[in-house]
Amino acid sequence: MTVAAVRIPPLVDHHCHGVARSALSDEAFEAFLTESDAPAAPGTSFFDTQLGFAVRRWCGPLLGLAPHCAPGDYLERRRELGPAESAGRLLGACGIADFLVDTGLTGDLTSPGELAAAGGGAAWHEIVRLEHLAEGAADAAGSLYGFLDSLAASVRESARTAAGFKSVAGYRHGLDLDPARPGSGEVRAAADRWLAGRTAGERLADPVLLRHLLWSAADTGLPLQFHTGFGDPDLRLHRCDPLLLTDFVKAVRPTGCTVVLLHGYPYHRNAGYLAAVFPHVYADVGLSLSHTGARAEAVLAEMLELTPFGKLLFSTDAYGLPELYVVGAELFRRALARLLAGWVGEGAWAAGDAERVAAMVAADNARRVYRL
Amino acid sequence: MTVAAVRIPPLVDHHCHGVARSALSDEAFEAFLTESDAPAAPGTSFFDTQLGFAVRRWCGPLLGLAPHCAPGDYLERRRELGPAESAGRLLGACGIADFLVDTGLTGDLTSPGELAAAGGGAAWHEIVRLEHLAEGAADAAGSLYGFLDSLAASVRESARTAAGFKSVAGYRHGLDLDPARPGSGEVRAAADRWLAGRTAGERLADPVLLRHLLWSAADTGLPLQFHTGFGDPDLRLHRCDPLLLTDFVKAVRPTGCTVVLLHGYPYHRNAGYLAAVFPHVYADVGLSLSHTGARAEAVLAEMLELTPFGKLLFSTDAYGLPELYVVGAELFRRALARLLAGWVGEGAWAAGDAERVAAMVAADNARRVYRL
Amino acid sequence: MTVAAVRIPPLVDHHCHGVARSALSDEAFEAFLTESDAPAAPGTSFFDTQLGFAVRRWCGPLLGLAPHCAPGDYLERRRELGPAESAGRLLGACGIADFLVDTGLTGDLTSPGELAAAGGGAAWHEIVRLEHLAEGAADAAGSLYGFLDSLAASVRESARTAAGFKSVAGYRHGLDLDPARPGSGEVRAAADRWLAGRTAGERLADPVLLRHLLWSAADTGLPLQFHTGFGDPDLRLHRCDPLLLTDFVKAVRPTGCTVVLLHGYPYHRNAGYLAAVFPHVYADVGLSLSHTGARAEAVLAEMLELTPFGKLLFSTDAYGLPELYVVGAELFRRALARLLAGWVGEGAWAAGDAERVAAMVAADNARRVYRL
Repeated sequence: MTVAAVRIPPLVDHHCHGVARSALSDEAFEAFLTESDAPAAPGTSFFDTQLGFAVRRWCGPLLGLAPHCAPGDYLERRRELGPAESAGRLLGACGIADFLVDTGLTGDLTSPGELAAAGGGAAWHEIVRLEHLAEGAADAAGSLYGFLDSLAASVRESARTAAGFKSVAGYRHGLDLDPARPGSGEVRAAADRWLAGRTAGERLADPVLLRHLLWSAADTGLPLQFHTGFGDPDLRLHRCDPLLLTDFVKAVRPTGCTVVLLHGYPYHRNAGYLAAVFPHVYADVGLSLSHTGARAEAVLAEMLELTPFGKLLFSTDAYGLPELYVVGAELFRRALARLLAGWVGEGAWAAGDAERVAAMVAADNARRVYRL
Repeated sequence: MTVAAVRIPPLVDHHCHGVARSALSDEAFEAFLTESDAPAAPGTSFFDTQLGFAVRRWCGPLLGLAPHCAPGDYLERRRELGPAESAGRLLGACGIADFLVDTGLTGDLTSPGELAAAGGGAAWHEIVRLEHLAEGAADAAGSLYGFLDSLAASVRESARTAAGFKSVAGYRHGLDLDPARPGSGEVRAAADRWLAGRTAGERLADPVLLRHLLWSAADTGLPLQFHTGFGDPDLRLHRCDPLLLTDFVKAVRPTGCTVVLLHGYPYHRNAGYLAAVFPHVYADVGLSLSHTGARAEAVLAEMLELTPFGKLLFSTDAYGLPELYVVGAELFRRALARLLAGWVGEGAWAAGDAERVAAMVAADNARRVYRL
Repeated sequence: MTVAAVRIPPLVDHHCHGVARSALSDEAFEAFLTESDAPAAPGTSFFDTQLGFAVRRWCGPLLGLAPHCAPGDYLERRRELGPAESAGRLLGACGIADFLVDTGLTGDLTSPGELAAAGGGAAWHEIVRLEHLAEGAADAAGSLYGFLDSLAASVRESARTAAGFKSVAGYRHGLDLDPARPGSGEVRAAADRWLAGRTAGERLADPVLLRHLLWSAADTGLPLQFHTGFGDPDLRLHRCDPLLLTDFVKAVRPTGCTVVLLHGYPYHRNAGYLAAVFPHVYADVGLSLSHTGARAEAVLAEMLELTPFGKLLFSTDAYGLPELYVVGAELFRRALARLLAGWVGEGAWAAGDAERVAAMVAADNARRVYRL
C-alpha cells in the first residue's frame, strides 16, 4: 500500500482551557495527566498511561530532551526552564492558529490572550461556561429576581463577544435531563430553592436551572457545546452518553441553535450518529485522542464512520499543561493524516477529497460553525 | 503477510427495498445518501460522507465515469442514462443472486420482481412488514373485530408466500417493549383506543399492538426480522439496542420463532452476543457497512468477534437508489475477503475454513434460515 | 514498520476455574466452547466460532496434530490420549506460573492444586465466590441467626487463606444494585424471606443479600472481583455494564477495598475508564480474548486506551477444558506482543517501556494487587 502524504493546515482548537501560570510540583504535574481526583494507586504512576507516554514522546524533544526520556528527567528539565519558557516552547510548536477557550475554570491559569500570545500570536475567542455564569450571578445576587435578571444579562452580554457557550450539565446532573424548556414559574421556584440553601461558591446542580441555562443560551443563536462522554469521577459516565440529549436536540431545533458534542468517548460513535441525522449537531473527539495516545488513530477512525465530514471538529480540551496542546494536536494531525492516506492508498478515497476533508476537520468546519 | 484470495459466492441479500422507478432530482438523490430527515446543514453535503465517497468510488465506473468523479458529473451522467438504464447497469453488476425485499415502504418503488429482473434475473422473495399489515387492516376496517380478524387473516395469508416478517417496533416505540404476549382483552382494548383516535394512513405506535404483531408473526414459524441500531431520527438510538430484546428473545423461544437482528450499529457487538447465546437468534450488519464506507472492514470485524459463523447474514438494506445495492455488496465482499485473507495470512484461520465461512455468510446461512 | 519482539514473562492468571476430571462426550466438549445454554442451532456448530478456530489452531499441535485439524480428528485424538494426558500436555504448555482459581463452580472439576500440578508445578491461590458461601451457609443453617453467623464466619475464614473474593451479582440480579451498605435489619429481613421460601441448593438472587455479601467481603480488605460484561444467558448483558457499579465503587472506596472488574466485553472500555479514574479499581479482558480469537488483538487494544498500565490484569477465565488455558494464554501473549511491538515500531512507545508494561500486565500487577 502506497501511503500518500496528506497535508493538515494550522488547526482551530474549538475547545480548550488555560495553562498553569506558575511552576507545578511533580505531583501537580502528574495530576494533570489523569481525570482521576486522587493520586495514582500504590505501585502505579499516571505517567504509565497512553497520555503519559505521548507526553514523553512528543514533548521531550521540544524541551531539548530525547523522545521517551524518563519522567524524572522531563520534570527536572521543565523546572530548569521554568513555566513561561516551557509553555512558550510547547505552545509555539503546537500548530494551533486559533484557540476557543472555555474560561469557566478557576485557578492560576493563563487568560485566552496570554495563551494565544504564547502560541506564537495565534487568534483566540472565548467560550462561556453557562454554569459559571449562574454561579457568579448567585454569588453576587441579593434576591431571587436580582439573580434571574443578572443571569439573563450576563448571558446576553456574553453572547455579544463570545464565540459560543458550554454546558457541563453532564457533570452536574447527567444528560438525562427533561428536554423541555422549563416554564418561568418553574425556574423561579428552582432558583428560590437553590439560593436559599446555597453557600457562596457552591456549584449549580439543580436540573431545572441547568435546563434554564441551556434554553437561555439557545436563544442567543450562538453554538452550544456539551460535555459528553468521559471525564473526572464527578460524572457518571453512563449518564453522559450523548444519545441522552436526543430529545433536547429535537426540542431545540426550531430555535436555530447549533449543538456541539464534545469528546463522546466511549460513546463517540453515538455522537457521530447525532451529527449525521440532525443538521444542527456537530461533534469532536477532543480529549479522547490525548488520553488514548497510540490508539488515537483507531478512535478517530470510529468517529469518521457516521459523522459527515462537514460536521467533525478538532479540539484538544487541553487544561493546565501546555503539553496537552502539543499532544492533542500531534496525535490528531498524525491520526488524521495516516487514516486518510491509508484510504487514498487503497483506492477508497480520492487524494483530492482527502486534502479537502483534512482542511474541513482541522479548521474550516470550526470557522464556519463559530463564524470566526 | 501473504494475503491469500478468498472467493465470495453470489450473495443472498436478506433485507432490502425497492428502488425509485422515476428520475430523481439532485436533492432527492442526495436525500437517499443519509438517514437524516432534512437537507444537509449549510456549507455541508451528504456526498461528503463515507457513503457518498463509496458511491462515487464504486458506481462511477459502472456508468462509464472515473471512480471518485465529482458529484455533479455523476448526477449528470445518471440523468443522461435515465433511471431504468442506470438501475440496470448498477443492479446488473452487484452480484446479488436473491433479493429478500421488505415491501412495506410506500412511494414509486420497483416491485421485488422488477428489482430482481433488473438484477440480471435474480431470484426474489418477500419480507412482510408487520406494521404495514396493521395499518392496511386499520385503513380498511369498519369495526374493532373487523380489524382484528382482517389483521389475523393478512398475517396468515402473508405467511403462505413470504420468506419472513419484519418489525420496525424500534422506530415506532423502541425495543424496550414488555416481552410478554399480550392477552386478547388487552389487544382488543388497545385496538379500540387506536382505531377510535386514528386518521387514515396514521402509523401504528401503540406498544400493545406492536407486541401483538410480534407474537402473531412468531406463531407462523417464519423468521422475524427486527430493525435494531441506527436509522432515521424517528427513532431514539439508545432505545434500539438489540439487548433490549433479550427478554422477548427468551419469551418467544418456545414458539420456535427465529429472530433476525438487523444492522445493530453501534450496538452490533450486542447483536452478535445474542446470536452467540441463543440458538434461535441471527444477525447482520446490513446498512452499517454502506454508511461506514472505508471503515466497513472494521465494523464487520467487530461483528465477527462473538457472532457464530453460522449465524451471520448479509444484507444491503438498499432503498431508493440502485447505487446502494452496489455499495452494500462491494463493501461487504471486499471487507469479508480482506478480513478472512488476513486471518489466513497470519495463521489464525485455515484457508479452507475461510472459504467455507465466506460461503456461509454470503448466502448459505440465509438460504437455511429462510428455507429458500 | 520494523516490529521488535516484546518478551512476555510467565503469566499470573488471576481468574480461572477447574477443568473436567473425566472424559467428555463430543457434545459436552462442544458445550464448553460457548456461553450458550443449548446445543448449536440446526446447521451450525460451536466449532465454527472464533473460539472454536483458536482451539483447533493452538491445541492441535500440542496433541500431535496439525493446526486447524478437523474437529472430529481433534476430538478423536483427545479421547485416545484420555483426559489426564490431554490436560497435562495442554496445561503444561500454557506458560501460566500462578493460577487464582474461583472454586465456586460445582461439577467434577480439578482442584486448584491438581490444576497447578498439571500445569507443571505452578503456584495456585483460591478466589472464593461469595454467592457460593451464602448458598452453602443456607443449605447448612437451621435458623436465621445460624445462617447469618455462619455466613459471617465463612467470609472471615475464607479471608484468612483466599487471595480474593468474587461476586456474580451481575448474573444473579444485574450490576444495577443499590450501592449502599444494607442495614442489619434489612439484611435480617431479606435473609428471613429467602430462607423461608428456599429449597436446598437454590441460588441466591436476593439483591439485599447480594449487597450484604459485597460489603462483607469489602470489610476483609481482600480484592473483590466482579463478573461484568458478557456471559451465559442467565444474565441480561445491558445490566452487566461495569459503569452500573460506579456508585458502589464510590461508596466502597473508604473501606480500602480493591475492586477488580472481569471481562467487561463489550463494555471493556467502560471498565478501563473506571480503572483510570478510581485508584482502587483494576480490570481485565479475561474471557473476551478467548471468545474473539483472531480479533483478540483488537479487543485488547481497546482496553489499552484508558486503562492505566498498572491497572490491567491477565486472566483466561478458563473453565472445563484445559484448551481454554492454552487459547487464553496464547491469544493474550500474542496480542500484547504484537500491539506493543507495533507501537514501538512506529515510535509511539519506547522499547524499554514496552517490556516493562508487558511484565506489569502479564504478572506484576496481579502479584501486587493480590499480594502473592
